[in-house]
Amino acid sequence: MIATTKIRVRYKDTDCMKVVYYGNYLTYFEVARVEFLRQQGHAMSEVDQKVRMPVVEASVRYHKPAVLDDLLEARCWIAERKRASFRFGYELLNEQGERVATGFTLHACWDPSSSKMIAVPDWLAKALSMGGPEMAPQTPPRSEAPRRSRGAPLSTDHPSSR
Amino acid sequence: MIATTKIRVRYKDTDCMKVVYYGNYLTYFEVARVEFLRQQGHAMSEVDQKVRMPVVEASVRYHKPAVLDDLLEARCWIAERKRASFRFGYELLNEQGERVATGFTLHACWDPSSSKMIAVPDWLAKALSMGGPEMAPQTPPRSEAPRRSRGAPLSTDHPSSR
Amino acid sequence: MIATTKIRVRYKDTDCMKVVYYGNYLTYFEVARVEFLRQQGHAMSEVDQKVRMPVVEASVRYHKPAVLDDLLEARCWIAERKRASFRFGYELLNEQGERVATGFTLHACWDPSSSKMIAVPDWLAKALSMGGPEMAPQTPPRSEAPRRSRGAPLSTDHPSSR
Amino acid sequence: MIATTKIRVRYKDTDCMKVVYYGNYLTYFEVARVEFLRQQGHAMSEVDQKVRMPVVEASVRYHKPAVLDDLLEARCWIAERKRASFRFGYELLNEQGERVATGFTLHACWDPSSSKMIAVPDWLAKALSMGGPEMAPQTPPRSEAPRRSRGAPLSTDHPSSR
Repeated sequence: MIATTKIRVRYKDTDCMKVVYYGNYLTYFEVARVEFLRQQGHAMSEVDQKVRMPVVEASVRYHKPAVLDDLLEARCWIAERKRASFRFGYELLNEQGERVATGFTLHACWDPSSSKMIAVPDWLAKALSMGGPEMAPQTPPRSEAPRRSRGAPLSTDHPSSR
Repeated sequence: MIATTKIRVRYKDTDCMKVVYYGNYLTYFEVARVEFLRQQGHAMSEVDQKVRMPVVEASVRYHKPAVLDDLLEARCWIAERKRASFRFGYELLNEQGERVATGFTLHACWDPSSSKMIAVPDWLAKALSMGGPEMAPQTPPRSEAPRRSRGAPLSTDHPSSR
Repeated sequence: MIATTKIRVRYKDTDCMKVVYYGNYLTYFEVARVEFLRQQGHAMSEVDQKVRMPVVEASVRYHKPAVLDDLLEARCWIAERKRASFRFGYELLNEQGERVATGFTLHACWDPSSSKMIAVPDWLAKALSMGGPEMAPQTPPRSEAPRRSRGAPLSTDHPSSR
Repeated sequence: MIATTKIRVRYKDTDCMKVVYYGNYLTYFEVARVEFLRQQGHAMSEVDQKVRMPVVEASVRYHKPAVLDDLLEARCWIAERKRASFRFGYELLNEQGERVATGFTLHACWDPSSSKMIAVPDWLAKALSMGGPEMAPQTPPRSEAPRRSRGAPLSTDHPSSR
């Protein structure tokens, strides 16, 4: 499953380079994964009572800067699932369908009642069904889908603010 | 050269998990690299007139959460320098000397007068002299410096907020 | 006219007191007034080309804290309009219909082409038609509408984070 | 007592109007009052264990915009103290000594152990000794100190971002 959400760029999100501040894409990723869980039937405020999902690693690639008032489409999916960790993948597109940013966050599971790291609980594992652009059968072959390529070289676009 | 800066954790930086919000480490990295450049004689407000340094990629590993009022030591160095890009490395330590987060940002150069991507200008390349924990001769051998290890497995610490 | 918008509380918006950080209500006010203008036919990205509306004064009263994942209703209206300034009024309600925060922002007009303060342009004045809870004829009398009262004393609720 | 603190303006604090985002002055106020308390011998992380100081009301007047890399001087003092509430006053100056913003925050006291609003505890009341620009005997007479005036009319400066 790929969960999609719309996010409007606020003044607050931009910086004096006139584009979205580079750290704020992680906020957009947060919005996207909270909506992923909600679409799987798990409101974040309830999830938090049962398990914490601390971020172990986060990574962002900046493709094209988002600007004030852009209405972004945020896509989120499960890119990897292991016994004690899982990885969300993200893609942000602007209204022209251009890729703004991609990235991932790697999470562990922490039990607030015992204050210990734990394996991914069964109920959560069920919600984290794998899926995403990489494995979607409808993905066009690579030559037709340049914006899916992972290791894209530095483009001549202005990828992000400082 | 490794530039070091002190950063006090604000309420604004924390979230309802009672630790620093995961996206705000990129703000701390920003503070660290701006101070790196200042210590090399380049105030950010002047640099911006001459060249923009858009972030192409950013990555954070969360080791141990920072909390309210922590006085962090932020370290920043040049981890890589190429013709048209360069990489800052970062390490954040708490007052106990424990690693809070590590990461990097990869930057390109963009000329505001021509609106084009350019090679790293000479004056900037000079400021970006390589150096950092990886290559510092005074770094103790690895067995004595576990907190320098890059590919550390998931620890039993609670690495970060959700 | 009263413009209403829905705003979901993000982790990013909260702080370690487990409620929305007090400064972030000004971000919610921003969202509310940008939507006010959009509902009047003026997208912010276009408005900015013609006139800047610097904030001269801002004020917030905190009634009841908003928490993670709350879906707030933000209401925005024009509370005052003068030759060279105007005032937005705001009210944020939670899903139980309880008042979370109220406030206002006072704005001036600044012309980016001449870099001077100017009177409110006619096209903008037209969009800023007065209206709001204070003057709505359907507003119930004060005794029945305690949540409309302006000078409410300190309540026994916990109004906001620190 | 007036506590003073230096605050460096970060990219993160600015917005696409190229000035500090209007809501972020409340973050600067937070930094200033936390330092006020620290200078009175009370670290925020300890205060929080004993009493919460929810903000009941906040107000900001924007005099002149702060910009990237400004090193602001933040001044904070106790402007009012009552049985169950107290008010911090704030003034932010830029490096030219010009007033950037002024304002106040009104706080109540809330006991985390009983979850009730309480009177200002004695130990805290002692730390909140009154004092500030308004009552400082060295304040020059009004005609010589225009930047102290409270009800300043809209100036021709560009006071803040949108």
